[in-house]
This record gives sequence, C-alpha cells and structure tokens, in this order.
Amino acid sequence: MQTKGNKYGTHRVISPHGVLTQAADKIDNDMNKVYSNEIVCDVISLNIDSASFKQIKDECGGDEEKIKTRIMQIVSERGKMQNPVTGSGGMFIGTVSRIGEDLKNRNLKAGDKIASLVSLSLTPLNIKRITAVHIGIDRVDIEGQAVLFESGIYAVLPNDMPENLALAALDVAGAPAQTARLVKKGDAVLVLGAGGKSGVLVCCEAKKHAGAKGRVIGMVRKQSDADKLLSLGIVDGVILASATQPVDVLEKALKANGGREYDVAINCVNVASAEMATILPVRDGGVVYFFSMATSFTKAALGAEGVGKDVTMIIGNGYCHNHAEITLDILRKNPKIRELFEKTYV
Amino acid sequence: MQTKGNKYGTHRVISPHGVLTQAADKIDNDMNKVYSNEIVCDVISLNIDSASFKQIKDECGGDEEKIKTRIMQIVSERGKMQNPVTGSGGMFIGTVSRIGEDLKNRNLKAGDKIASLVSLSLTPLNIKRITAVHIGIDRVDIEGQAVLFESGIYAVLPNDMPENLALAALDVAGAPAQTARLVKKGDAVLVLGAGGKSGVLVCCEAKKHAGAKGRVIGMVRKQSDADKLLSLGIVDGVILASATQPVDVLEKALKANGGREYDVAINCVNVASAEMATILPVRDGGVVYFFSMATSFTKAALGAEGVGKDVTMIIGNGYCHNHAEITLDILRKNPKIRELFEKTYV
Repeated sequence: MQTKGNKYGTHRVISPHGVLTQAADKIDNDMNKVYSNEIVCDVISLNIDSASFKQIKDECGGDEEKIKTRIMQIVSERGKMQNPVTGSGGMFIGTVSRIGEDLKNRNLKAGDKIASLVSLSLTPLNIKRITAVHIGIDRVDIEGQAVLFESGIYAVLPNDMPENLALAALDVAGAPAQTARLVKKGDAVLVLGAGGKSGVLVCCEAKKHAGAKGRVIGMVRKQSDADKLLSLGIVDGVILASATQPVDVLEKALKANGGREYDVAINCVNVASAEMATILPVRDGGVVYFFSMATSFTKAALGAEGVGKDVTMIIGNGYCHNHAEITLDILRKNPKIRELFEKTYV
Repeated sequence: MQTKGNKYGTHRVISPHGVLTQAADKIDNDMNKVYSNEIVCDVISLNIDSASFKQIKDECGGDEEKIKTRIMQIVSERGKMQNPVTGSGGMFIGTVSRIGEDLKNRNLKAGDKIASLVSLSLTPLNIKRITAVHIGIDRVDIEGQAVLFESGIYAVLPNDMPENLALAALDVAGAPAQTARLVKKGDAVLVLGAGGKSGVLVCCEAKKHAGAKGRVIGMVRKQSDADKLLSLGIVDGVILASATQPVDVLEKALKANGGREYDVAINCVNVASAEMATILPVRDGGVVYFFSMATSFTKAALGAEGVGKDVTMIIGNGYCHNHAEITLDILRKNPKIRELFEKTYV
C-alpha cells in the first residue's frame, strides 16, 4: 500500500512549513519515495523560463559549463529548478516512469512521452547530469527525474509534430490561450515583445480574434523581427522600440493606430521595467495582460495609479482550459509559424 | 495662448531623457511656467510616505531642523519630494491656485481644497518654507506649490467629514471601488485581511453587491477582528487563519461556504506570500483580486498554474473612476464604519 500525498504536493515541502511547493525554499526531490497520487517521470530536457535563463546566462557570462554548474547548484539547493532571482521555472519533457496506484485510471501509461504544463518552480526535480546546454533556445538536456502531483497538468505529446516543436510551443501555451479570451472582434491590440516565442503566438491568436476590422500592432526591438512578423501576416503593423522606454513606445504605438489608444495590450517581453510601456497605450477601461515573468506587481499597481489609468491589469496565468490544444492548433494551421518555430526553437 | 504639456507630464522631465516623471532623477518645478493642461496648487501639507519619513527621521537623528533641511535639499535637487533612498513619495493637501485653460471644464475651481491621489514621487513641487514637522504622523506643513498633470488624480475634500477621516479612507479607495465592479449578485466572496482598513471597506462593498443571496466571508487573524466584522454586519461569516498558510485557509474557507469554492477572492492583507491562500479557494473561472502591495507577480502567476487553477488574477490598480466617491459614500452611509475609522485611523 503506497502512502497518499497531498493533492497539491505539500507532502514534499521541506521549508518553510505550511506553504505549497512553489513558495517553498526547498522541497523533497527523493525519487525513491513512493506516493499513490504522484507520477514520476524520466526527464529528457528542461525548457527554462526565458527571464530565468537570461538571468543565469548573464550571470555566467554565457559560458556553458558555468551555466551547467549554476543549474546543478540551484536544483541541489532547492530540490527544483526555480531561479532564486526571477522566481520562475520552465517546464520539462520526459517519459512516464511510474504512475501511483491512485492515478492508474488516467489515460496514461509508463513509457508515454509527456510535457509538464506546470512550472518547474514547483516540481520536484533530481538531476544526475546535464548533457547539453542549448543557449539559443533556453533549453538544457539532462538525465534525471521529476514528479507530477495529482493536481499537476501535463500533455501527452502529439503524433503529428516533433516533440521539441510541441514542447517549445507548450512552454508558453497560457499566453495565446488567454489572448483568445481577451481579444474581441474589432479590437486594437498592442503586443510588446512580439518577435519572441510567446509574442508570435499571441499576435497570431490576437489577429484571429480581432478580425479584419481589428488592428494588431507588434512592438519589437529589431528590424529583422519586424520583417519576420510582417512576412508571417499576423500583424497589421509593427513598431521598433524598447519596452523600457515608455514615452517612446506610447508615441510610436499611438501613431501606428491612427492616434487612438488600444483596447488590449499584451506584454510578452523578457526584460524588467516594461510595465509603463504596456499600460500607457491602453484606453480607459481597456485590458493590460502581463505575460512576462519579469513584471513587477508594485510597478504595475503604482504605475497605473500614477498616470490615472483605469485599466484592468491581469496577471498571466500559465494555465487555462484547452491551452495546449489552442497552442498546438496554431502550429497546425499556420505552416509559416510552424516553419519559424522549427527553425528557431527546435 | 498657453503651451500644452504632455498628458503624463513628460514635458517636466529634466533627466534622464525618455522616462516619466516618477522614474526621473530631476524634474522641472518652475511654477511660473504656464501649461494649458496643468493644475497648480498651493500646498498646505505633505503626508510623507511612511518608509520615506522614517528613513529621513533616522538619518537626521529625529532633529526637526535637520529634517526640514533634508526635505528642502531633496526637493531642491529633484524638483519633487521623492526620497532618493526609498524611492517613495507620499501625497499633498492644498488649495487649487490655477487651472490650465484646457482643464477649465472640470468640476473644480480656484480655492477648492483637494488631496492629491498621485504620488509625490512624480509631482513637481516647490517649497518656500517648511513651517512645521509633525514627527508622529509623518507630516510636514509647508508654504509652496505643486503641479497636477492632466492625468493626475485628486479628490476634492468633502465638507461633511473631517479632513483626516477622508484622507484615511481615500488612501485605500481603489479596493472598494474595484470590489463594486467585480462582485455580482449572489456571489460567494472571500476577503483575506478583512479586519484592516481596506478589508472593512471591501467587505461592506462586497456585501452590498452580492446581496442577500450572496455570501461574504472575512478572513482575519484575530478573534477581536472577527467580532468587529460581525458587529458591523458586513459579513455573513468569518474565519480565523493566517494568509501565509494556504492549505489551512482553503479548508476553513470551504467549510464556511458549505464546501463550495468562491466566485471572487479579494486579498487585502499586508504580508508577503499570501498568493496561494487567495487562489486556492476560488472556483474555476472565478476572479482573484490582489490589492495587497506585498503580492508577488511570479508567485501568483506560477502558483495558479501549478495547481491547475483557471482563474482571472487582477493586479490592484490604486485608481478607478469614482473611487473617491464610492469610498467616502461608505463612510456616509455606514455610521458604524465611520465610527470605527474615526476611532482607529484618525
């Protein structure tokens, strides 16, 4: 008889007492313990959250060996791959190794290849060895194991696309799925950081829902990203600016929308201090959606108040219903985006 | 013909280039310049942010003359009363001196007594003389002038209540005003930190909008706060718990609502790591509103994902339309709450 753990995994928390695993400093990553409502996986690779990977990469001066050492150190100290500076995690891909007896009725079997859709910041992880660091795509290949709790969500990887392609897209699945909910027909939508992985998916979904009368403007830093977005046909216009320069963003964004403010702004950048650039271009009563993990709660809250903006500011929730399907469908229905993802993130 | 300034006041930024006045090191506090979309006020007193005032007081060894000199120095260097160590400001009380011609249609006239509802950290300020330092209440009386930009929010101080009572309530006006929008008839609402200043106002507004068939449950730490809420008649029930213990909060909150999850949870606590206690009790598709400035963006974003909760999480915006009126009306219509505020916060 296996021991039953807590639905949310609190049985794995070492310190501090009484919190969930995401808030814990340290969790138990012993894979030899057997709980009846856990799934243990053999991990193949980790897709590190973009803000986290950038922080580690910068700290290590881009040196691969130092990055490996830093990641091993974090996981050994915390029992999970949660960046102590950014607080963020990422996701893993792996094969199911052991299914607890209480979860046997799930449509899942040992050997199935899955992607975790919960953050590494709350997932017990044990790394034996890091076998490769893929700097350009925020990914590391490892040998090790991870645990999914009863409440933990995951996706069995689809048969109609390569696993790394699916993984790259699923990593940011919350953003396009939320975009699908937030954007209404005819809306003017500003996407900051539109050239990145989540940005491209968000633009595509925004354009789909805003429709022909809507207007989707992508903000990027580089001309090459602007060209890319235009060639994908998922934006009505682009602006070149830095999200840390709110006044410049505001002026260019308004100009790109005929002087009018936006109904929705979606922040997909991976730099800090981008709150005001996201808030300023939005109309009274509009929606600001922060998907970037580098967002500061207080900067957003006080910033909107400081400029008297009555906007609804939403914290990007990594999960919403059908987010995996919505995101994989973008790749299925848009060969150009699939091609871009295969070229850039796989 | 007066010159029109930028809506957000960037025309007053001296350095660095391209930021808003809050992020600026130095802004232009020349009150002789006339812009058509500014309001100039004769300042009566500054309510310095608590963290800022403490830092200055400590630095000056509590000496009133030194505190005066330090404040004069900061304002002369920066053009605003933004503490260079804490980064924070405060607010001012004053009378309207000059209204720019583009803002003449506002319901405001010279001589009106107002409180600024934007931070001193972004407000051009010129001090002639500091006439008094009130060490116990973080307040200084001055002779000088301040500028409100077109986007700057303020409240005309009401005639039917003492100034300090109005200020105590206006300080947290965003929370009850947002509650009025979020809570629908029949909703089950959980208010965390219900015994504090914002919590009481939020419970009152939540109960008003949830109606007789709705259910408002207040979470507090102390029995005395529980008794207070029940005697005010603004909750249907109370639970005693700590917001940093999410599992405990979840269990007690569900019990208080007949085992059912909540439609809305509103976080008014003043401690860190209260994100999960706010998220866990909410139903799929429900709303989580974080008013607490101690909220961590990443803890909320990753936390909801980690437990597979499809909820809409909103960042508490200090401003929304009519927030001052909604909040002062609570005091007008609820003598018991007014009495509590007079006793506790004035």
